Amino acid sequence: MIYFDNSASSYIKPKEVINATIHGITSFSANPGRSGHKLSMLCGEKVFEVREKVKRFINAEKVENVIFTQGCTEALNIAVIGTMQKGGHIILSSNAHNSLSRPIFELKKMGLIDVTVVSPSNNEMLTIDDIIPNVKPNTYLIAVNHVSNVNGDTTDIHQIGEYCAKNCILFLVDCAQSAGHIKIDVQKDHIDMLALAPHKALFALQGIGIFAFSIKTNPKPIKFGGTGTESINTYQPNEYPECLESGTLATPNIISLGAGIDYVSKNFDSITKKVNDLSTYILFELQKIEGVKTYTSVENIHFGVIGFNIKDVDSQEIASILSDEFNICVRGGLHCAGLKHKELGTVNQGIVRASISYFNTFGECEYFVNSIKKIAKRY
Amino acid sequence: MIYFDNSASSYIKPKEVINATIHGITSFSANPGRSGHKLSMLCGEKVFEVREKVKRFINAEKVENVIFTQGCTEALNIAVIGTMQKGGHIILSSNAHNSLSRPIFELKKMGLIDVTVVSPSNNEMLTIDDIIPNVKPNTYLIAVNHVSNVNGDTTDIHQIGEYCAKNCILFLVDCAQSAGHIKIDVQKDHIDMLALAPHKALFALQGIGIFAFSIKTNPKPIKFGGTGTESINTYQPNEYPECLESGTLATPNIISLGAGIDYVSKNFDSITKKVNDLSTYILFELQKIEGVKTYTSVENIHFGVIGFNIKDVDSQEIASILSDEFNICVRGGLHCAGLKHKELGTVNQGIVRASISYFNTFGECEYFVNSIKKIAKRY
Repeated sequence: MIYFDNSASSYIKPKEVINATIHGITSFSANPGRSGHKLSMLCGEKVFEVREKVKRFINAEKVENVIFTQGCTEALNIAVIGTMQKGGHIILSSNAHNSLSRPIFELKKMGLIDVTVVSPSNNEMLTIDDIIPNVKPNTYLIAVNHVSNVNGDTTDIHQIGEYCAKNCILFLVDCAQSAGHIKIDVQKDHIDMLALAPHKALFALQGIGIFAFSIKTNPKPIKFGGTGTESINTYQPNEYPECLESGTLATPNIISLGAGIDYVSKNFDSITKKVNDLSTYILFELQKIEGVKTYTSVENIHFGVIGFNIKDVDSQEIASILSDEFNICVRGGLHCAGLKHKELGTVNQGIVRASISYFNTFGECEYFVNSIKKIAKRY
Repeated sequence: MIYFDNSASSYIKPKEVINATIHGITSFSANPGRSGHKLSMLCGEKVFEVREKVKRFINAEKVENVIFTQGCTEALNIAVIGTMQKGGHIILSSNAHNSLSRPIFELKKMGLIDVTVVSPSNNEMLTIDDIIPNVKPNTYLIAVNHVSNVNGDTTDIHQIGEYCAKNCILFLVDCAQSAGHIKIDVQKDHIDMLALAPHKALFALQGIGIFAFSIKTNPKPIKFGGTGTESINTYQPNEYPECLESGTLATPNIISLGAGIDYVSKNFDSITKKVNDLSTYILFELQKIEGVKTYTSVENIHFGVIGFNIKDVDSQEIASILSDEFNICVRGGLHCAGLKHKELGTVNQGIVRASISYFNTFGECEYFVNSIKKIAKRY
């Protein structure tokens, strides 16, 4: 089986991640830090180590502002709902996944905020020029997807971050598809709130996400409960990280994330080179096939996402043929990103997405290209 | 090391759970059901199998109304926030963990609901007689903790459930400490909403919880995002389970839960007998030691929770001595359950809690009792 659906979840995990997770399950399944005994403290230390690792990996200001969530979706929900300013205005990138756009539109539906969706005018990268004309006096948040999960379209987060910092606007970046493929530096890029999906290119288990925020941001919790602190307080304590981490943390999943970050950090140059090479090969070869339309720009190929279609054939039909006849796993359809499909004009057809990992091989890519050649001939 | 903190998280997992989880990590790490290819479908089927298992385990009406959450805390937050009736009144048991009481008090602080906290008049079991005098015309929810995590105090959920059903009041039961120790039947007990913490007595990994609800209940989501359905819809779809499960599910953790349920179901009589025997032994022996005060009733001992103190010594001091000198892991302090400590008069002292699992031994219990004898002599 050839697995080209790594933008949904990376399937093959490095053995270092698997071994660390197994060790986590067998040795660190106590409740981290919540009880006072030595095993609880040891689990708490393991969690703290990973929190420190994430801090260094994204260059966050404070380790306390690195929050473990269920996943990237929860991180984005805390970011959007937890910083809501009633009567305010949000600028949202059309690259957004539904995990970013739906909480924003829910707030709009409740009459709490207004929202403007912006698209890149150059069709490849959202820039500050796309943003500025849409800023209003009550704009308090600019929310972007660093890299589109549909076709790899990207965002000039550095420019936009500088603008936000100068204009006292919060800057939220969804790095679900970029982390692991490109270095993230929240301070350099003035990112106030960042969300990560570690089960993708950081090779962690599903069931763990990251929400990180700057010292000038004060997100409120969307869930309330046991924090292991101020137990007698009827209300949620205000201190981070506990305030945003009610309930038992998933220690083995967190340990898998720590091992994933170590692996990616150690092999970063090798990973990015290989993903870039394999994805470039696929993109160039697909572009030569008659009837194939690609949606990914060569400038964005290093994120490992290649969006394409064959003539006007339903993308899910192509994905099914690839799965059933050629044993290749890609995703068809709308990729939980309706705004992007409206922009690309692919609401009905969807897009076939091949997404590449470090663990794919050149032979797999060659077989994939040949399979597409065969399928394209049928239409 | 002796681990008596199983009410926080069970530390030793059955080998069946560990093996199933490893298989889950290596073979089922694709995105379950969200992509159309065969591996995604296979992961989706695995998730559905466990959903069916949970449905049978608690006798739920509909498999679609069994929701996978990050943990029990998220389940309780969906239950409380997702069914909020503005201007309504909630009755809350004093047994409640902060994961149940804090979301309720947050709603109260926002002026959305009113709440009455009820305590058991007989000091052992909350009954319908404790509830009825507190019911108001606008009472729409009765929220109870099936079993107190502090001392095992329980709740007559059958009586209260019948009353709720007759009076069209929603009935929410937190089964974090009961599932795995006692059979749960949501239909027999008229439970509208149930929350489970599978990493405790169901031996699953942390990072997975269960929220289940009756067909007459329509909880709204507290998080919004990708559901793999209606991708073009700007708003959250209404269909269950997707509506309440935004984001990528934690398939390996879900698989661990399936294996945990299988293990508990197969060994239920043996588990309950052993936990009851070991806990009864500890309780009776502690009661013989001069200066030891126990808070657990013999009627509730089968939940494996034994709360006690030595004279007026800070419970965390005793827990630290047990950890540092005797290598025994118990929890001291307030156990994220302030209401219960107010009721028991132990807000300052806290309570030492030993919590027993199937994987503890009689020898460990004997050593523990002897350790307490030695410590008690010092005060």
